[in-house]
Amino acid sequence: MVVGLGPGGAEGMTAGALEALGQAEVIVGYHVYIELIRDLIGSREVVSSGMTQELERCRQAVRLALSGKRVAVVSSGDPGVYGMAGLVLEVLEQAAPDSRLSVKIIPGVTAATAAAALLGAPLTHDFAVISLSDRLTPWDLIVRRLEMAARGDFVTVLYNPRSHGRQIQLRQAGEIFLKHRPSETPVGVVRNAGRDGEEVWVSNLQKFTGLPVDMLTTVIIGNSQTRILNGRLVTPRGYQT
Amino acid sequence: MVVGLGPGGAEGMTAGALEALGQAEVIVGYHVYIELIRDLIGSREVVSSGMTQELERCRQAVRLALSGKRVAVVSSGDPGVYGMAGLVLEVLEQAAPDSRLSVKIIPGVTAATAAAALLGAPLTHDFAVISLSDRLTPWDLIVRRLEMAARGDFVTVLYNPRSHGRQIQLRQAGEIFLKHRPSETPVGVVRNAGRDGEEVWVSNLQKFTGLPVDMLTTVIIGNSQTRILNGRLVTPRGYQT
Ligand SMILES: C[S@@+](CC[C@H](N)C(=O)[O-])C[C@H]1O[C@@H](n2cnc3c(N)ncnc32)[C@H](O)[C@@H]1O
Ligand SMILES: C[S@@+](CC[C@H](N)C(=O)[O-])C[C@H]1O[C@@H](n2cnc3c(N)ncnc32)[C@H](O)[C@@H]1O
Repeated sequence: MVVGLGPGGAEGMTAGALEALGQAEVIVGYHVYIELIRDLIGSREVVSSGMTQELERCRQAVRLALSGKRVAVVSSGDPGVYGMAGLVLEVLEQAAPDSRLSVKIIPGVTAATAAAALLGAPLTHDFAVISLSDRLTPWDLIVRRLEMAARGDFVTVLYNPRSHGRQIQLRQAGEIFLKHRPSETPVGVVRNAGRDGEEVWVSNLQKFTGLPVDMLTTVIIGNSQTRILNGRLVTPRGYQT
Repeated sequence: MVVGLGPGGAEGMTAGALEALGQAEVIVGYHVYIELIRDLIGSREVVSSGMTQELERCRQAVRLALSGKRVAVVSSGDPGVYGMAGLVLEVLEQAAPDSRLSVKIIPGVTAATAAAALLGAPLTHDFAVISLSDRLTPWDLIVRRLEMAARGDFVTVLYNPRSHGRQIQLRQAGEIFLKHRPSETPVGVVRNAGRDGEEVWVSNLQKFTGLPVDMLTTVIIGNSQTRILNGRLVTPRGYQT
């Protein structure tokens, strides 16, 4: 099983995720997420490791599952959105192409909609989701997607927006949108949605890169129709024509 | 409160949504969703109506809330994705611009990730979400977005893909993607995710419009990297360069 834990605390977890964790014999995950669900794990076997160990964790999970154990790989948010679901399926295919092992993927609330809910309702119209991490994706392709999202007037959600080592990407993203949308276009920034230290900012395209955006943050850039109502971002469902 | 119920059954609902329903004095929603949660409602007051009555339902919910009642407006999936959250904020702003009423939006698992989980892991890379309904959005704008999503090599999720009255839109969407991606590009189609009558098809860009796609269906068009592994759609996280 690959289980989405939702954005943070237990209240964002689905009943299905809770049940899957209950059934697992071994729980595999990034140690920060394992700590978040420590109470639910009790005395069961745990395989946890650091941020960069994802591939090795997946391999271990697949080995354990092929040896007959009921394994839950946990992922924050939704496990299919820049999460572990794809990697588990890829590793399984390589390790045992003809295996009949059934992999159940349990969806979760993803950071985009968790952040949107705290900001108001910015995602009520068509949107694009883009990761600014160029670790596994060429930066040109990310730039092309930013351009297309900006030109298509998509509300745009940025995951992995900025890290210590990646500072210029967010600024470049902002500049691309400034070529297509006014500088007052609303931008929402949410850090640690549903977790301790949750922070929410309503800003705009001119200013948002000055906020303390980091890898615990999701950024939502409004489209041409997005407005601020009572301090909250709202993208109307209908286009005024 | 505006509460996301997730895609279907109780197992897709978060603990936070359950708690919100527990606290509400009045529950407002589309009658189909009200039936889905009938057990949780017990003897509490319900305001339910049909599909096209959304605006009137929101107005009633806001009136009740302004009169001091604790109201939960329910929405399927995530309430901020083509859901009720924006409309509630807009109606409240019009009815009582200076009201201090606090509106809490409780996110849910949206159809895109619920469908993706059943298909495998198609959303592991950047994606666009587009509604094909031209009831409130000019069709030209939808076409522009489809073009941009296709040119940006976004995995693309289509909501509201086809109804009795809207048959040609899905075919046109398919044609737009065929100009930019090979006809064998994997396409996944999920009907009634998490509900009775759940159906899952793995198809391709050439053939998917022949499937029984309707308004209970979500369509996911793969990008240039999406593969079928063991019958499941997987978009690798990394681009092979
Ligand atoms: C590797 S991705 C994992 C996304 C996760 N699978 C999901 O569906 O939310 C990590 C990025 O997700 C976003 N993110 C995840 N959890 C978040 C939270 N609680 N608050 C704000 N952003 C979050 C941030 O942009 C972060 O850099
Ligand atoms: C008005 S939108 C509401 C979306 C909802 N707020 C969400 O976040 O999933 C309705 C569209 O969502 C998709 N949808 C909603 N629930 C679904 C389900 N259980 N299975 C498949 N598609 C679904 C279909 O494309 C449908 O036409």
